[in-house]
Amino acid sequence: MLFILKHGVDYSTLNEKLKESSASYKFLDLYGKKIVIAWPDAYVENITDPSIEIAVKPKRPFQLASNEWKKEPTEVDVKGVKIGGDKVVVAAGPCAVEDEEQVLTVAKAVKRAGASLLRGGAFKPRTSPYSFQGLGEKGLQILRKVGDEVGLPVVSEIMDTRQIDMFKKYVDMLQIGARNAQNFDLLKVAGQSGLPVLLKRGMGNTVEEWILTSEYILSEGNGNVVLCERGIRTFEKATRFTIDIGGMVAAKLQTHLPICADPSHPAGKRELVHSLALASVAAGADMLLIEVHPHPEKALSDSEQQLTPESFEVLMNRIKALTNALGRTA
Amino acid sequence: MLFILKHGVDYSTLNEKLKESSASYKFLDLYGKKIVIAWPDAYVENITDPSIEIAVKPKRPFQLASNEWKKEPTEVDVKGVKIGGDKVVVAAGPCAVEDEEQVLTVAKAVKRAGASLLRGGAFKPRTSPYSFQGLGEKGLQILRKVGDEVGLPVVSEIMDTRQIDMFKKYVDMLQIGARNAQNFDLLKVAGQSGLPVLLKRGMGNTVEEWILTSEYILSEGNGNVVLCERGIRTFEKATRFTIDIGGMVAAKLQTHLPICADPSHPAGKRELVHSLALASVAAGADMLLIEVHPHPEKALSDSEQQLTPESFEVLMNRIKALTNALGRTA
Amino acid sequence: MLFILKHGVDYSTLNEKLKESSASYKFLDLYGKKIVIAWPDAYVENITDPSIEIAVKPKRPFQLASNEWKKEPTEVDVKGVKIGGDKVVVAAGPCAVEDEEQVLTVAKAVKRAGASLLRGGAFKPRTSPYSFQGLGEKGLQILRKVGDEVGLPVVSEIMDTRQIDMFKKYVDMLQIGARNAQNFDLLKVAGQSGLPVLLKRGMGNTVEEWILTSEYILSEGNGNVVLCERGIRTFEKATRFTIDIGGMVAAKLQTHLPICADPSHPAGKRELVHSLALASVAAGADMLLIEVHPHPEKALSDSEQQLTPESFEVLMNRIKALTNALGRTA
Amino acid sequence: MLFILKHGVDYSTLNEKLKESSASYKFLDLYGKKIVIAWPDAYVENITDPSIEIAVKPKRPFQLASNEWKKEPTEVDVKGVKIGGDKVVVAAGPCAVEDEEQVLTVAKAVKRAGASLLRGGAFKPRTSPYSFQGLGEKGLQILRKVGDEVGLPVVSEIMDTRQIDMFKKYVDMLQIGARNAQNFDLLKVAGQSGLPVLLKRGMGNTVEEWILTSEYILSEGNGNVVLCERGIRTFEKATRFTIDIGGMVAAKLQTHLPICADPSHPAGKRELVHSLALASVAAGADMLLIEVHPHPEKALSDSEQQLTPESFEVLMNRIKALTNALGRTA
Repeated sequence: MLFILKHGVDYSTLNEKLKESSASYKFLDLYGKKIVIAWPDAYVENITDPSIEIAVKPKRPFQLASNEWKKEPTEVDVKGVKIGGDKVVVAAGPCAVEDEEQVLTVAKAVKRAGASLLRGGAFKPRTSPYSFQGLGEKGLQILRKVGDEVGLPVVSEIMDTRQIDMFKKYVDMLQIGARNAQNFDLLKVAGQSGLPVLLKRGMGNTVEEWILTSEYILSEGNGNVVLCERGIRTFEKATRFTIDIGGMVAAKLQTHLPICADPSHPAGKRELVHSLALASVAAGADMLLIEVHPHPEKALSDSEQQLTPESFEVLMNRIKALTNALGRTA
Repeated sequence: MLFILKHGVDYSTLNEKLKESSASYKFLDLYGKKIVIAWPDAYVENITDPSIEIAVKPKRPFQLASNEWKKEPTEVDVKGVKIGGDKVVVAAGPCAVEDEEQVLTVAKAVKRAGASLLRGGAFKPRTSPYSFQGLGEKGLQILRKVGDEVGLPVVSEIMDTRQIDMFKKYVDMLQIGARNAQNFDLLKVAGQSGLPVLLKRGMGNTVEEWILTSEYILSEGNGNVVLCERGIRTFEKATRFTIDIGGMVAAKLQTHLPICADPSHPAGKRELVHSLALASVAAGADMLLIEVHPHPEKALSDSEQQLTPESFEVLMNRIKALTNALGRTA
Repeated sequence: MLFILKHGVDYSTLNEKLKESSASYKFLDLYGKKIVIAWPDAYVENITDPSIEIAVKPKRPFQLASNEWKKEPTEVDVKGVKIGGDKVVVAAGPCAVEDEEQVLTVAKAVKRAGASLLRGGAFKPRTSPYSFQGLGEKGLQILRKVGDEVGLPVVSEIMDTRQIDMFKKYVDMLQIGARNAQNFDLLKVAGQSGLPVLLKRGMGNTVEEWILTSEYILSEGNGNVVLCERGIRTFEKATRFTIDIGGMVAAKLQTHLPICADPSHPAGKRELVHSLALASVAAGADMLLIEVHPHPEKALSDSEQQLTPESFEVLMNRIKALTNALGRTA
Repeated sequence: MLFILKHGVDYSTLNEKLKESSASYKFLDLYGKKIVIAWPDAYVENITDPSIEIAVKPKRPFQLASNEWKKEPTEVDVKGVKIGGDKVVVAAGPCAVEDEEQVLTVAKAVKRAGASLLRGGAFKPRTSPYSFQGLGEKGLQILRKVGDEVGLPVVSEIMDTRQIDMFKKYVDMLQIGARNAQNFDLLKVAGQSGLPVLLKRGMGNTVEEWILTSEYILSEGNGNVVLCERGIRTFEKATRFTIDIGGMVAAKLQTHLPICADPSHPAGKRELVHSLALASVAAGADMLLIEVHPHPEKALSDSEQQLTPESFEVLMNRIKALTNALGRTA
């Protein structure tokens, strides 16, 4: 149950009434509104109070992320870059930060081609302990420096709750990866940080579970979440993961949050990336996350699926043509 | 192993040499060429003969369907409608043929909006024996009559080998459904019929298995096959099936056959059909198969996912805008 | 809706009443009872008649296969071998019939070790048209001959409706394979044949769909169906298919039909077959279907997963120990 | 590459040689041996040194967990309870710790029936932020107190790296849950803690990825890992998850680590728990993890799948009969 409250009024009587009920509840500031969120199993429908502007009982298990109460799409602002509006925002950069020159080369190229955000991994979640684990804080420093130099806000993946203060120093947007999609303590910490969050879907998670992970962030009072589809686990092995375009569309019909698609990871091979990127945009994605490397064949991770800067430029031009045809921009 | 033979020469010496080897092989007429297909495990690499123009050893388990030997895309001709060229071909019509008026209403509407083929089920594969099983031969008669009246070639699903002569009388293109995707006797009969075949992927089949089902048809000398992605079984339940856009793209990279997408079945709900159709076209689909019903809510099957004629027209306009932007037509 | 009727009374008045309703319905002889099955969407709850002994409205989509009306487990009788009672019945034999000596060797060995049925494929559904397709009718003749000689009823897979008369001549039990699990015309023909049917689950089918395929057979008046779990398609590739022990148990809780497990196909490798067979029996399987070949490494199909006769004997001894511990026999 | 070293010799020359190569490597104490683990891509095959007893190059991506070098099964010792030997060890207890009385009641009952370990969740990973999140540290205190009182070592799930010192105070074995299965920082911390770890498989992880998660723990010098299968995500919805018995057997063939099965979570319904538990034991599980609650219908989480103490006792008796038949104990 959600109570959207009037501005500048006294909430103490309402608070008393809620205390008297057996309900679990919380006062939140979200999207410029004062809100009371009561847990779905709480019986608070009968509570009335002059401070309540609107009362809504969402039918879905995610309440704050549902478009049942917030019908207009949410725009997430990453240092001036607006995700969720007419423009399809593209974040590009290497899978892993390797050195400053690599990142700088890519950053300049992707900016020129039309990317609005710089991505790059400093802490890498790797299936094997013997794979390259990333440069760590040094990687974040490089990313920050290059981002400032080139003029692109930066996004990078956080892997552990203990890293949050470090990330606050360096990045403009936190990424939570597929393997930590249900690391609930990390979600809470990301929520508390106030930073915009790019929230990937776990490879074994349903659309409902995915949106529920955003609820962990929103219920900390942080509404700046972009949901990112990156492929699910299915029996098909011709691709690395199965990009769930249908699930992305189903999510968009249920939430006000913007949706991002990552075509690089499900593709697994760069020959497929263009087609999956275009399909995602045609299906309604608000943002794309694309891996670009100056020399993909020498990359320390995901060498098979990263685009060259040249190929990325071709893709951007196709995306622009596509968005024009669909009444959007890129 | 494939031997592409010269035209108008004597093959008898080559035939002798093949007989002497222990190879399984077959002479075929395919795509205007005389071809010898030798089973993948046959050792015939050393055979030489003046009648051989080119010898190719495809690395993939499907040989005839592979673009390793036939690099140019195949155009399948359904009574003048070319599938596999610049134009994205749309087949539309009701899930099930219910009566003549229903089919006629839909046929006129979809033709006006730009569809090139009329689809409609007369024999319906239903999960339950208690669901509507289709009108049978009467359904085919209606489809034929309406197709002729409106000027649209017709496609309908065959379910059993014993129906082949009946289908030859009424349809311009056979459809083989997901549930019969590995009914190998039916595939052989469809191959022998010479009719163009719209071949759906089984909901539990890999891309490789899907293309291999076309090999059953091609190896009967029938090259007129369109591969149709219609969604696979995954853990996600927000959609009826998971449309495998990545698998579709992976298939396109391996075969010369045209690819069709069916956005209606994976959607399960009509709200998703537009987005999935557009995504399929953006990913490179050569054809779309879309369910349209004059009154979807009264449909005897798949009432949730069929579009109204009005909604279909809107979709066709969006598809045309999209194909223009991508350098194709619709 | 099911009406179980009294014996030896007049059903004509009831038939009139049913005709007057708009219901689809059918009179059946099943499990020694006269039954009226009305389609689930028929409104016949109000019909009363002296000929009706019991009226049941099953809540599940499968009506005849449901244990809501037939609470006692069904025993399927294959020429005297009872499947579905205390004894766990084992059917064993080669994946494919290759020659008489091969089948005879295996048949003697598996009988000695405790198998009750002889299995062997004569028509083989193969993913590739270039794989061994089976000996055809000759294979059935060998199977019949060896079965008679050794004293084991035989079961073999039928692939096409046009083969039914041939199969009636040679086999004691029809097998319908995973790839034809939703070949509904074949299911109907198998139902009409009156032969016991070993009905495999499609690799992409849910438990509910699987049981519904048996409903196609039962609603033809043939109640002799054994449901066979043989592995489903999942993302896991350490095994060929994922044996769904949980699905098997879930099926057993909903139907009166006996359940068989095929540990050979999901294993894919013979090292796993023993463990999967024992797990299936511990979970409650009434029957096992196991591939045994005198020289697995030379087998023309599925060479990786077939057991040697020696290994099969070891397995049978372990199965016997296990069933004793669980209060059954083998 | 693994070098198993001689005891009590000088490793400094070997260390020099390794430094000179470009290899990443690490000295470890594991299973009573001094070991050098070199990353799989390191070229150190040519290194010889008197301190090396055996050099092994495992072919699998997990090296320390592979049975290529350690052929005898590992026994994990949890305060005297040995997991991985003849005895099938059962850990039982409530899904979530609710209060002391609840835990005490269950602990006494499961001990009496034959359980060797007490399980109970204090920090609960919940899909929704509005579901019961556990009692936190208070839950661990209750668990510890009851465990001591009843005489059962305790196991509980850790969710975040920051909790490690707290867990060290209270538990005898850490559990890492399915949702944190690829929380690599947590795996490292668990490895460093030296505590035995019950490591669940992620619901979207392959067998190979699952064993690789144990490699993160082993490569910190902690060899006390039990791998726990708890069901994977598939299209089947008759059960909550699909217990992957085949994957469990495949794992056992590749690793020396003991395997645990959790039949409660994949079952989702208590009617299925017995059968899945028995199947797991028959397939070779070394341990079972079973949810038991004094009043399952009132449980604050997973109320559908928890057994009553009475039902647990019946199950234990069946397990004992089964293990006797298979030459083990319980």
